[in-house]
Formats: sequence, structure tokens, C-alpha cells
Amino acid sequence: MGTTLLRNATIVTMNERDDILTGDVLLRDDIIAAVGGQAADYDLSTTRIIEARGKLLLPGFVQTHIHLCQTLFRGQADDMALMDWLRTRVWPLEAAHDEESVYYSALLGIGELLRSGTTTILDMETVNHTDFAFQAMAAGGIRAVSGKVMMDAGGDVPAGLHEDTDRSIAESTALLEKWHGYDSGRIQYAFCPRFVVSCTERLLTEVRDLAAKNQVLVHTHAAENREEIELVMSQRGMRNVVYLDHIGLTSPRLVLAHCIWLDEQEQEILRRTGTKMTHCPSSNLKLASGIALVPELLEQGIGMGIGADGAPCNNTLDMFQEMRLTALLHKARCGPESMNARTVLRMATIGGARTLGLDHLVGSIEPGKKADLQLLDLNDFHTFPSYDADPYSRVVYAASRGNVSHVWVDGKPVVEKGKVKTVDKTEVLREADRSIARLLKRL
Amino acid sequence: MGTTLLRNATIVTMNERDDILTGDVLLRDDIIAAVGGQAADYDLSTTRIIEARGKLLLPGFVQTHIHLCQTLFRGQADDMALMDWLRTRVWPLEAAHDEESVYYSALLGIGELLRSGTTTILDMETVNHTDFAFQAMAAGGIRAVSGKVMMDAGGDVPAGLHEDTDRSIAESTALLEKWHGYDSGRIQYAFCPRFVVSCTERLLTEVRDLAAKNQVLVHTHAAENREEIELVMSQRGMRNVVYLDHIGLTSPRLVLAHCIWLDEQEQEILRRTGTKMTHCPSSNLKLASGIALVPELLEQGIGMGIGADGAPCNNTLDMFQEMRLTALLHKARCGPESMNARTVLRMATIGGARTLGLDHLVGSIEPGKKADLQLLDLNDFHTFPSYDADPYSRVVYAASRGNVSHVWVDGKPVVEKGKVKTVDKTEVLREADRSIARLLKRL
Repeated sequence: MGTTLLRNATIVTMNERDDILTGDVLLRDDIIAAVGGQAADYDLSTTRIIEARGKLLLPGFVQTHIHLCQTLFRGQADDMALMDWLRTRVWPLEAAHDEESVYYSALLGIGELLRSGTTTILDMETVNHTDFAFQAMAAGGIRAVSGKVMMDAGGDVPAGLHEDTDRSIAESTALLEKWHGYDSGRIQYAFCPRFVVSCTERLLTEVRDLAAKNQVLVHTHAAENREEIELVMSQRGMRNVVYLDHIGLTSPRLVLAHCIWLDEQEQEILRRTGTKMTHCPSSNLKLASGIALVPELLEQGIGMGIGADGAPCNNTLDMFQEMRLTALLHKARCGPESMNARTVLRMATIGGARTLGLDHLVGSIEPGKKADLQLLDLNDFHTFPSYDADPYSRVVYAASRGNVSHVWVDGKPVVEKGKVKTVDKTEVLREADRSIARLLKRL
Repeated sequence: MGTTLLRNATIVTMNERDDILTGDVLLRDDIIAAVGGQAADYDLSTTRIIEARGKLLLPGFVQTHIHLCQTLFRGQADDMALMDWLRTRVWPLEAAHDEESVYYSALLGIGELLRSGTTTILDMETVNHTDFAFQAMAAGGIRAVSGKVMMDAGGDVPAGLHEDTDRSIAESTALLEKWHGYDSGRIQYAFCPRFVVSCTERLLTEVRDLAAKNQVLVHTHAAENREEIELVMSQRGMRNVVYLDHIGLTSPRLVLAHCIWLDEQEQEILRRTGTKMTHCPSSNLKLASGIALVPELLEQGIGMGIGADGAPCNNTLDMFQEMRLTALLHKARCGPESMNARTVLRMATIGGARTLGLDHLVGSIEPGKKADLQLLDLNDFHTFPSYDADPYSRVVYAASRGNVSHVWVDGKPVVEKGKVKTVDKTEVLREADRSIARLLKRL
């Protein structure tokens, strides 16, 4: 792949010192080889030079809760609360999926994610056809930790999604063996039991052991919705996170989406076990689930990323919208200084990387890390003035996907001048429409 | 100007029946001459044809609370509560304004507004140099109701903003005489006492009489922040809106920004008097002011528009962001069906027009109305699938400024293929930076 030189950028490193540098960044193959200083300092035969004067270079965003298989369902389940939303719309639509619809749903989402600066995702697929989602992640060029969803319990689950425990585990393990580590580790596997309500205890404890053995993540939902929490209480006799801790699933490799309704004991469990969580502000509002206690949880040192969740509960997969909402939403309750732009941008980059255990590879611009980067052009009405402007404020409070000029994953250009290079937009939009039409007919 | 034909559009009329039509729209000079049907039906010598197949034609957005004079202060006052934000940052910056900085601040905001589909604003300027803001509105081509802010009381106001009552009224009247009705009524005047705290009772009652005599709007802030409300209580001995009603300022021509902390008596006053309000969801969160009781107030039939407020408390002027937040924000408290996309899009178009008493002219696509329109191209990853998609959902939950392809005000193209035609972007960005640099040096 050779080398790429980004010249004269304003580099928002997101390193431990929050350095903001002006200068060049050298990419060698998939790695950031040098940061700051001038090109003359580097002895290189650069194959590609990009002039970035006046532009902001950031790490690619890391989203820690996404459902690519649901991208096709955008707009198909508005204005509903979680359990209704699942039972009457999202589960039946997931059950109707075929190989091709899973593939194009994922590619549609990947196109949207790359276009808006997200380079790494923690994703959760549906029960079936997950191999085709991985094929889309392989082709689309995004960094992804993903797995098939596991659902071996629960009365309201459509037949097409209800699995036998052994089969669920066998299929997950086969996908792990096929995809974990693909493309020099760009694709990784995570076990994805959907939530306590849809899983037997045997499934959850086997997942615990398999994840420990394979050193991979477990990705699930918890404490999202009061009806869900009551179901867990009635089924297992304890609160959601208390139960997960009771069966030994809590660990630094467990990532819990939402965590809106944590009591003090559950917060203590997250602290004590190093279990991670994902804040999904748009989804939590749209499904009327509630508002997570983000400033209080951050204050306790609980590890947290940000995620858009799936298209039918958001309805976009855009980190700029999630960052802005994260920065705004908690101020009314906790005061204007409770969340600032720098804190939020850290959550969206290095914080997300840490949540996934990938902070040695991505989430900041430092020599030796993977070249997962985005270049923002802020020369527009809504992101001006530039004079005396704080880069964190411009990115979090004002910028949007349209400001993303270039994106690289593993040093490969996936977006150039605002165009996604790895996903054929015309084909994917056409096939997305054909796919959702097919699924709706099957309902 | 002749005629323009928009062919084969999906027309989201926002008329009383919420008709969504497919067909052509004919613009003759500044007026919508025909809606729906086919071009062959029209006997015309069209000077311009725009193919709009697969695109959404909407009324331009109406924002009912904007401060163009603050656009230069974007990012200069993050993470502060209202009274601090005014006293330590926004008032000193307003006091530092000169004629040129007011002009470019307004043009920067107008460029942003038009680019994101807003064609009408209710604006509030600063104490001085308001003629230059009107010059920018005249040049920029936006429909605007605006006026100089009036501040003849209040201990913490910088000297440069404190006015003599007579002078404030004389200057307002002179601006009204010069600008009200400009360009066939595209520009209108509104009296803008800042808020009760910064106005004497004499000023407010004279404004009441002058507004009635001239049949123009009064635009002010009320019940935004608990500290502000306590100041009103201590100064006037009653709650904010009760006081406005007591002095006879309440009327269908009064527009109150924010109205977060209304008690039952104040809600009753709005209902009884037909006084209007503006919901500013981003600003209300960013200044930690609170969350207005929007579903409950709408249920009572209180007239309401949406506004971005000023750049330093948002930090954008983007109706797409305000609509999405309006749709999401109230669900956590009031349930998932409490605000749907259609209700929000009505607030952003015809509801805003009604708030300004301009619904006979703008806010919906109907023959005889002003040709203030926007064309959205939703052929993008984040706004797909299109099959079986609800147009309201696509616009409110998923679309963003980048989807705005063309905008017309009074039948004149102000945005074409995403480029603002009436504002020289290079000049305005350069002069915005020079201007804010000058103001910061003066502080």
C-alpha cells in the first residue's frame, strides 16, 4: 500500500495529553508512522500527498452499539416503546431476513457509518445469515467487532428467531472460527446474547466460558427499559446487572448497551468488575426508555462508549448527532458544565476504543497505531468563525457528516472528498429498496 | 422573473389535509401558481424547468426565534447557564459589535439558514447597528421579521448596551419606518424588548401601543431560566407571563421565546390571549435551562414555532437538528407517541408561519402562497430505504442539511444544488473571522 502523507493538518490527537498539533501525519501501510513536524523530517518516497491545511484530522469514531441488520428497517417502527417495538416490528422483520437482505442492510449501514466518520463498530446481528453481514463488513472496509444474536428463550419471539441452545452456540463458534481475526484483525467476533429475557442461563454461562477461553467480547443489552427490567426480576428474581454478575458474566470484556436504569448496587458492580457500557442517547429517547446517568457514571470511572443503536430506533447511525445529543442532554439535569465537548469527543474516540479493548490499536492519533482517521473540512457557514475557535466545540456542537472529507481505515481510503469508495451507493440503495420490499411482503 | 416548473416532485404540502401529492409545481414570479397535476395541464411559456422526480418538495422552514447578530459568537460561550452566559460573554460581545461585524454576523447566519432549508425567521438583533443586519437580510434573500433589541434597565448590562427609553423607542420606530414592508413585504419589523429584566415598564407599555398601532409583532424572551424568573418576581412582584399579561402586552402578536417554566396560570394566559411561543430545544438544553412542556402545551392549542436561538447557545441554526430533537426529547417523559414526525414538521412549517401571523403567505405549498420552498434529495445512505417510507419520518428523523438541494424564497433560487447563491461564502467566512477577531480584541 505504500505511504500517504497528510500535510499541514490541525491534528486533534485525542492522546493522553489531549495534544492538538499542527503539521504532517505519515501513514505507512496500515499504521500511523509519524505525527506532527514537517514532511522534510521524514525520509520517504511518499506515494500519495494530501494537503490538509486548515482542516482537522481526527481519529475515526468508534461506535460501541450498532445493529447493521436493522438498517433496512429505518422508519418502519417509529414512535413505539421497546417491547412493542421488538415484538410487533423488529423481531418479525429480523425473522423475515434472507441472506441478501442481511448483506445489503449491513452495506447500507456501513456506507452511512463511513460517510459520517465512524471507522470502528461493535455490532450485533440477527439470529440467521450472519455470515452475509460479515461479508459486507469485509467488503465495506469498516473495522468491526460483531456476532450473531443469540435467543434461546422468551415467549414472544417469532419462530424464525427462536433457537436451540446448542445450535446457537455451535453457530456462534463456527462464525468466530471463520471471521475472528480476518484481514489482519480488522474483523473480530463477539458473542451476542440479545438480553437476559431472551436467553437461558445455560446459554449465558456457556457464552461466559467461551468468551473467556477465546478472549473475545460479550455484547448484550441491559437495564434499557422498565418493562424489560421487570421481566428480568420476575424470571430471575434479581435486577438485571445483579443477575449478570451473579452468573459471572460481568468482566472487562462485557459491553452492556443502554444501562439507563442502574441502581446503586448495579453501578457498584460495573465499577468493581470493569464491565463496560454504551450510551445510546437518541435510541433511549426515541424508544421512550429514559436518560442514562452519564455524568454520574463517568465520574465513577465506569468505561463508556457511544452508539447509535439500530436505524429503526434512531433513525440514523451518525456519531455527530450522538455526540451533540450526549453533550446537550445531560446539562438540563446536571448543569451546563456537566458534559463538555472534549469529554464527549473522548467518549466517541479513545473512550469507545477502550470500551472494546482496542485502545492499543485505535481511538487516537499516535505513532504505531492503526491508520483509522478522518479529515474534516470546517470551511462552511455552520462551522465558522474559525478564529479563536475550540476544535472540540466545533466538532461536537457544530459539525456534521457533511464536514467529513476523507476517511481511512487501516490506512486505506474509504471516503474521499465525501464519497464512499468501498460501497457502491447506486447498487446498495437499489438493493436496499428491493430487500425491504421483499421482507415486508413476507410479514 | 417569469415561471419555474418543478416536475414530478413528491409534494409534502403541509396543507390542512396533510396532502402528499406527486406531480408538478408551477412558480410564477414570487407565487405558487399551481400544485399537482402534470405540466401539460398548464398553458405557459416556462423559463426554467427543474426535474424533481424522486425528490421531496417541502415548504421552507420557518424559525421563530433567531439572533443573527450572535452568529459570530459561535463557540465563544459554551457550557454556561443563561445569566452568566449573558453577563460575561454575550452582552460584552454584543456591546463590542460594529456596523461591519453586525452585517457579516447576519450574513453568516443567513448563509447557514438558507443552506439548511430555512426561508423565514423571526429574529432579534442587538441594541446598535441594526440597520446593517437589515441590509444583510435584504441582500441575503431570506424572509425575515426582525428588530433591534431594547434594553433600558438592568444593572449588569454593559454601558454600550444600556439605552435611554426614548432613544430606544425612537430608534426602533425609525427602523420600522425604513424596513417594514421592504421588498414587497419580505422584510418586516418586530419590536424586541429583550426580556422583562432588562426593560422598564414604560418601555414595555409603549411597545405594546406602538405594536398595536403598527400591527407588528412583539418578540421577547420569557420563562427561560429559573434565575431570570426570580429576578422578575423580585422586580415586579409576579411571575413572568403574569406580569406581561398584567401590563397588557399579551396578544396574538406577542411571541415569547422558550416558555420553559410556565405554571398553570401562565399557561392559561397563553391560551386565553392567543399569545404565541417558540420551542428552542437545543438552546434550552445547552444553557441548562430545562425542557419545555411541549406536548402538554400543544394539547392545549397554544401556538408554537421552533427556533434555533443564537449560535452561541446551540451552536448551529439548523432546523433539521431542532426538529429531530423536538421529536425525540419529549418521549422519555411523555411516551413514544407524544410527538410524531408529522406534528413536528407542522411546527417547523405552517405552525411557525401561524406563530408569526404569516400563514396566509408561507408555511405550506398551496396555490396563491409565496414560493418559499425547498427540494430535498434523499438518495443517500442515511435516508434510505425509500420503499414504503413515510416522508415525515424521513425528513424529521433522518434527513439533514446535506439533503437540501434547492431553496427558493419569493420564487427566487437562493440555493441551487446545495450552493447558496445569494451569499458569497468565501467573502463571508473571511470577514466573519476578521470581525470576531476585532470584537475579541475590544473585550
